Amino acid sequence: MPLVTLLTDFGLRDPFVGEMKGVLHALVPGLHTVDVSHGVERGNVREGAWILGKSWSVFPPGTCHLAVVDPGVGSERRAVVAAAAGHLFVGPDNGLLAPALRDAGAAEVREIAVRELDRVRRGTTFDGRDVFAPAAARLAAGRAVAEFGPEVHDPVPLAPFDPRPEPPGWSVEVVRVDVFGNVVTAAEESFLRAELGEEWRRARVRAGQEWLHGLCVAYDDVPEGEPMLSIGGSGTLEVSVSRGSAAERLGLRAGDRVLVAGPEV
Amino acid sequence: MPLVTLLTDFGLRDPFVGEMKGVLHALVPGLHTVDVSHGVERGNVREGAWILGKSWSVFPPGTCHLAVVDPGVGSERRAVVAAAAGHLFVGPDNGLLAPALRDAGAAEVREIAVRELDRVRRGTTFDGRDVFAPAAARLAAGRAVAEFGPEVHDPVPLAPFDPRPEPPGWSVEVVRVDVFGNVVTAAEESFLRAELGEEWRRARVRAGQEWLHGLCVAYDDVPEGEPMLSIGGSGTLEVSVSRGSAAERLGLRAGDRVLVAGPEV
Amino acid sequence: MPLVTLLTDFGLRDPFVGEMKGVLHALVPGLHTVDVSHGVERGNVREGAWILGKSWSVFPPGTCHLAVVDPGVGSERRAVVAAAAGHLFVGPDNGLLAPALRDAGAAEVREIAVRELDRVRRGTTFDGRDVFAPAAARLAAGRAVAEFGPEVHDPVPLAPFDPRPEPPGWSVEVVRVDVFGNVVTAAEESFLRAELGEEWRRARVRAGQEWLHGLCVAYDDVPEGEPMLSIGGSGTLEVSVSRGSAAERLGLRAGDRVLVAGPEV
Repeated sequence: MPLVTLLTDFGLRDPFVGEMKGVLHALVPGLHTVDVSHGVERGNVREGAWILGKSWSVFPPGTCHLAVVDPGVGSERRAVVAAAAGHLFVGPDNGLLAPALRDAGAAEVREIAVRELDRVRRGTTFDGRDVFAPAAARLAAGRAVAEFGPEVHDPVPLAPFDPRPEPPGWSVEVVRVDVFGNVVTAAEESFLRAELGEEWRRARVRAGQEWLHGLCVAYDDVPEGEPMLSIGGSGTLEVSVSRGSAAERLGLRAGDRVLVAGPEV
Repeated sequence: MPLVTLLTDFGLRDPFVGEMKGVLHALVPGLHTVDVSHGVERGNVREGAWILGKSWSVFPPGTCHLAVVDPGVGSERRAVVAAAAGHLFVGPDNGLLAPALRDAGAAEVREIAVRELDRVRRGTTFDGRDVFAPAAARLAAGRAVAEFGPEVHDPVPLAPFDPRPEPPGWSVEVVRVDVFGNVVTAAEESFLRAELGEEWRRARVRAGQEWLHGLCVAYDDVPEGEPMLSIGGSGTLEVSVSRGSAAERLGLRAGDRVLVAGPEV
Repeated sequence: MPLVTLLTDFGLRDPFVGEMKGVLHALVPGLHTVDVSHGVERGNVREGAWILGKSWSVFPPGTCHLAVVDPGVGSERRAVVAAAAGHLFVGPDNGLLAPALRDAGAAEVREIAVRELDRVRRGTTFDGRDVFAPAAARLAAGRAVAEFGPEVHDPVPLAPFDPRPEPPGWSVEVVRVDVFGNVVTAAEESFLRAELGEEWRRARVRAGQEWLHGLCVAYDDVPEGEPMLSIGGSGTLEVSVSRGSAAERLGLRAGDRVLVAGPEV
């Protein structure tokens, strides 16, 4: 029962995602698909890469992850397939797969050079349907990545999300803002534990102009409208506002940075 | 072929729903999912409860209904599973399941106390993925509700949607406004038939500042831009505007009330 | 493994699409569904017809295409099923199926007169769930179109999308604007090849107040913010702006027309 996930910046108003699924079903009758998100900001490879890096491991081994955030479509950028940790990946070689492959470890990456089964291409700007979906279908059905083309030894990298030392703590990237206005940062729980030890839940964060102190476990732990810290669903530090938008309240958006530090002494 | 429906206030821009489905597929390969809606207003348990109460019976027996509108996530509120009328239900114990369970009748409700198969929880604010999806997967795969934990004899109730007598008729809640601007009320067709008898289709409604008279069967029964009454897809009285928005035209939104009365004599 | 596609103007905020799928799964356990789009502009039969006409052939033979853009719901307009080119179609008889059936060729169209298996209809305004979904389920499960009702010899037509001669070239309809702001026109690549011969890629287009010259293959072929021409995913001429919105830049929307001509001599 092959499973293919889809992650794109195509939105759901147009028939783009539906047509990709049409190709998948035409090549592998009975496969299952799951939409991870089609709401990546247009052309924002970094946001797509973060989401894929955080979501792939929720799915069962054997899953094929089809990701298309591809502002260079139609240009000479490579199209690639990869296998790592029992999962399969398909997408443009523009950094989109990088965090997932780093997380999965020991990836075999191949260029999609063999396209003998591709649809007759009608346009030049819809590789999601015409190149990546056929490759995902064949991967999900069991074709080995080695059969797609030559090994890629220099995949396009993505600047890492790692915190940077900045006294009195670390400067941490705001990766994205979710639909609730929660500000998702790149500070992993494991990073906080390693750096701050037993006291990690007493971390403080300067977000916008405010200092926030200590992590909560429920949005109701603070009064309505007040900001709070927690470990969000991605396993990283998030800034939230109880029943409100932290992004609006604190004036933060993707690409901004917050300062994370240990408890005051 | 287990079937799981999903109803949340998570929207579709973030990977939340996709990750829930990842857990479902990881635990029960080959299951099918159907999105009922992820557009419930954020934290609006009452709207989610209405939608679930109206939609569950469209699905076949054996379906597991996974509903997460959960502003109290992370707090001490209970997580529950339930079985009723051959259907299965999973969600927070905050009233969200109440109308569906009342409609289904004779429900067995159990607290989710046994979590031995849960994922390693990375955060504290995504019970949809970490608690409810695993429970739904196991239920859909055949585990009995009794195995999840102790019986819940006092599930959190939801104020009923019933009309209130108010001369010359009844005050009726506006439950929600759909994407077309149709104003969905809580007055069931069966209620109108019981109270107004043969003449029920000649009911009149004061909606906003206007009196509307008599039910139509097609939006084209009135001139473009004019308001009209009908029995909508939920089986309740709706106020619509032909090719326009009744909510805008009449200034109505969820929580408002309209006056429903029999024909003038 | 029956496959049903869905195309509507219902959006995804309401439970309408979910309830249609509930009916499909109740009648044919284990079927698969694919959402083509639920973002057709409300009541815009012409846009829905274009999308269906362009997307149906991506799916495998045997697919049942369920399309509901139906401003006349509840009125006397016919509901129809059709079979053509090994595909199946269900929808209102208002022109919505016309381009797909013309593309597929030699269609057998039947009115849905036999409804013996329909759900008890609770409303009069949700034929998507109460008439079309049951018909689609039965079609997908193998019932012959001839069993649904009498043949329809005069399906409601749709004005064709063909270019009109207008010196120095052709006046071409803007069919829709996609989520990226790309302006999709009705000029097929095959039309340009037939009319302009070898030089077709040097076509010029007057879009809004600007003349654009020659087709590109990648959005990056022009500087950021500049307009360009390409053959889009639908196989027709599109006007785009590199990393921007052509619709905004050029002031174009569905229903407008552009002038397409050969290269200047």
